[in-house]
Amino acid sequence: MNPRNIPLLCDYYEYTMGNGYIDNGIADRMVYFDIFFRRTPDKGGFAIFAGLEQFVEYIRDLRFSDSDIEFLRSKGIFCEEFLSFLKDFRFTGDIWAIPEGTPVFPGEPLVTIRARAAEAQLLETFSLLTLNHQSLIATKASRIVRAAEGRTVMEFGSRRAQGTDAAIYGARAAYIAGCGGTACTVTDKWYGVPASGTMAHSWVQMFDSEYDAFKAFCSTYPKRPIVLVDTYDALGSGVPNAIKVFRELGITEGGIRLDSGDLAFLTKKARRMLDDAGLDRIRITVSNSLDEWIIRDLIEQGACIDAFGVGDNLITSHSDPVFNGVYKLAAVEDDDGNIIPKIKISESVEKITTPHFKKIYRLFDGDGKAFADLICLHDEVIDDSEPLTIFDPSATWKKKTLTDFRAKELMVQIFKDGELVYDLPSLKEIREYSLSQVDLLWDEVKRFSNPHAYYVDLSQKLWDIKQDMIRRSRGQ
Amino acid sequence: MNPRNIPLLCDYYEYTMGNGYIDNGIADRMVYFDIFFRRTPDKGGFAIFAGLEQFVEYIRDLRFSDSDIEFLRSKGIFCEEFLSFLKDFRFTGDIWAIPEGTPVFPGEPLVTIRARAAEAQLLETFSLLTLNHQSLIATKASRIVRAAEGRTVMEFGSRRAQGTDAAIYGARAAYIAGCGGTACTVTDKWYGVPASGTMAHSWVQMFDSEYDAFKAFCSTYPKRPIVLVDTYDALGSGVPNAIKVFRELGITEGGIRLDSGDLAFLTKKARRMLDDAGLDRIRITVSNSLDEWIIRDLIEQGACIDAFGVGDNLITSHSDPVFNGVYKLAAVEDDDGNIIPKIKISESVEKITTPHFKKIYRLFDGDGKAFADLICLHDEVIDDSEPLTIFDPSATWKKKTLTDFRAKELMVQIFKDGELVYDLPSLKEIREYSLSQVDLLWDEVKRFSNPHAYYVDLSQKLWDIKQDMIRRSRGQ
Repeated sequence: MNPRNIPLLCDYYEYTMGNGYIDNGIADRMVYFDIFFRRTPDKGGFAIFAGLEQFVEYIRDLRFSDSDIEFLRSKGIFCEEFLSFLKDFRFTGDIWAIPEGTPVFPGEPLVTIRARAAEAQLLETFSLLTLNHQSLIATKASRIVRAAEGRTVMEFGSRRAQGTDAAIYGARAAYIAGCGGTACTVTDKWYGVPASGTMAHSWVQMFDSEYDAFKAFCSTYPKRPIVLVDTYDALGSGVPNAIKVFRELGITEGGIRLDSGDLAFLTKKARRMLDDAGLDRIRITVSNSLDEWIIRDLIEQGACIDAFGVGDNLITSHSDPVFNGVYKLAAVEDDDGNIIPKIKISESVEKITTPHFKKIYRLFDGDGKAFADLICLHDEVIDDSEPLTIFDPSATWKKKTLTDFRAKELMVQIFKDGELVYDLPSLKEIREYSLSQVDLLWDEVKRFSNPHAYYVDLSQKLWDIKQDMIRRSRGQ
Repeated sequence: MNPRNIPLLCDYYEYTMGNGYIDNGIADRMVYFDIFFRRTPDKGGFAIFAGLEQFVEYIRDLRFSDSDIEFLRSKGIFCEEFLSFLKDFRFTGDIWAIPEGTPVFPGEPLVTIRARAAEAQLLETFSLLTLNHQSLIATKASRIVRAAEGRTVMEFGSRRAQGTDAAIYGARAAYIAGCGGTACTVTDKWYGVPASGTMAHSWVQMFDSEYDAFKAFCSTYPKRPIVLVDTYDALGSGVPNAIKVFRELGITEGGIRLDSGDLAFLTKKARRMLDDAGLDRIRITVSNSLDEWIIRDLIEQGACIDAFGVGDNLITSHSDPVFNGVYKLAAVEDDDGNIIPKIKISESVEKITTPHFKKIYRLFDGDGKAFADLICLHDEVIDDSEPLTIFDPSATWKKKTLTDFRAKELMVQIFKDGELVYDLPSLKEIREYSLSQVDLLWDEVKRFSNPHAYYVDLSQKLWDIKQDMIRRSRGQ
């Protein structure tokens, strides 16, 4: 059981609805909820889906304590039948999801939950919270890691994270998307994300001189020490003192870190000073308000940087700190088990939901690159040995008939009748899988600004059902 | 003990430094660290300091488990003396802080920690994390609450929060700054922040018709029900169905909620429809991507709104999601207990720290309004019966001699020799105190854009010490 998961971390209206379903005799109706998002953070071309493991643990372990029940009873609006239902709560439904680490696109179901109405409703808040948060950070980390073009990116943001979980799971999500490690020690202990870190400015200030501070540090940690050179004057004293100490102690592998000033100018000067001293294996790490744009600029300007430590802008996804995943009813079952699709109409066209119990195929072209996702009814089968015509769901005249392609189903079953039937992969496996899947996207989709819009199409059958429901709801 | 607090939620470098202090014989040196911030989120005129209770609990309860020690031992770089120090860890130092809920300004110490070097270093990460996070959300909530001009603001953002703690403590911080409640149930259980919520669109979709959905809900919850009217067509079906059900069931107190569309237009129309039906005590709640700017615009346009539900933009402080509090060494003690001030110089002038062990006076004018904070040496005393000359620390020719003023010390002692000596106020008390203190600021400081810069000045003695240290470090 993950001690970070709290049963009552749940919007109050999930309880008023659950209790109301019981009061109105519809709590056991089987329903289908989809989790999907409408917009990629930073207007990027794709997102990285993350947080599935914590979502699974939450549902597997969800139990209410006596004091939780007592708290709800004290509100005076919940019936005893509902409180008993909570007391004995075990998830009994089915869940399908896209594997953690997969690149995903707006509008497609990331998770589908089939369960009794009162059960499904209870899962909404935490499911969204954890999937939204980790997908947000993984998506941002992917941008930053790609900007670094193979150089190491370390997640350094705990102190600016929005709470403890934001630090721990933010570091986990950043690792999935390719970060090399974190400053957050407990994420190493729990998840094996390598933690690292050497000194703050306070270390340097604690000694009578910068030289003394470096010498003390490198004596304690002679194996690959990294010293922070900008407490007083980076090029005037920091780098010279580092060089002096490295030479005196015979240290040839290690690093210096710069945390202020113009990082392009300073790293080029520092690199030359180190090289001139024969210290060409001393690496240069930089930090200080980095993001994907600054990292790209620094590299383009020839900054001599081996590793980036990224704080605020990664751990909060500063430039766009919300992943807007939603949890929407897609269908219910009637008494005979027939699936009745449900839709939410909105004045805003992009807020109209896609009804029904669905699945997704990812379509790969002759080069093996992903080029479209096709959302189908749950029982449709795409045969990739036959030609397939796809079309843009909002501009239906944009059609394409595919011949040389491969179709792969994206969602896998996670829970079946309440049992966990999915082997959760290790974090390392998720990371490798994620990086390999990002490699299957065209560069056009990976642009930071104005990326090519990856196609997320509906099958003809699903499109027809959706259009028909919209028309009927408008009385046409 | 707060189960949300994790000892190893700590940047790895705090351990390498702590271990290094031991290895170099300086772990017991008494040091002074300040926590302060450099910039107010959203370029506002002030911030609300929050998170002190969780900071205090963390320090009071900080213990390392055997498995924590074993994990660190496995890294192979920490000496047994350091691991023993962690195993027996108890905080033994002194802490002073500004009370939770106080309006605060850039550059002034919010917290000062006096402790042995190895102890003080260990507190950095969590202290910053929790104070940064809650101060961020309280500051944003204060703006949103002030924009609502007395109307209720509910915090509705759990699902978009950056992790579990962000939801729980974000709701707590929002309440401090004046929100009326939250959707987050556990924050009610733990902290007494009133939780509320009624229905999502899924409730409406679960029934054969919108009318059936409203009737079922209002039958289950006849006391002040709130129904969500925009699942299909707000004015065409939602409001008429709500009116029909309210009348049939004789409900005169309750509300409708609108979650999409143009909220100025829709609420004015809905208000008239309700009033025409004699339902003038049915309140209108709105939600959907609200923030202080939209709320102000809606009110200016005459929207008929009684309560606002605010999600993403509050719970993540979307427009500026980082509170940049830092933890900087301000002084050390020599063997005789003399305080030796310490400074960090930077190329960026605003990043130069203010040295020494300090305290703060808030100065109030003849109207009782706060108009300046004065940072002094710890042993300076301001006598407000005598004239006082203050000056701007960066434009020293801006001087002012005060006669009719009152001076109040801001910081209180929290820990003394490791003992908690401060009575933590209840959350309700913090909230009342906070709102009363915001009332003591001039409107000019409360503007959302381009507020008047509140004066945060240094005493002459402190200013002299700082200037002297800067000059000496530059060899002048």
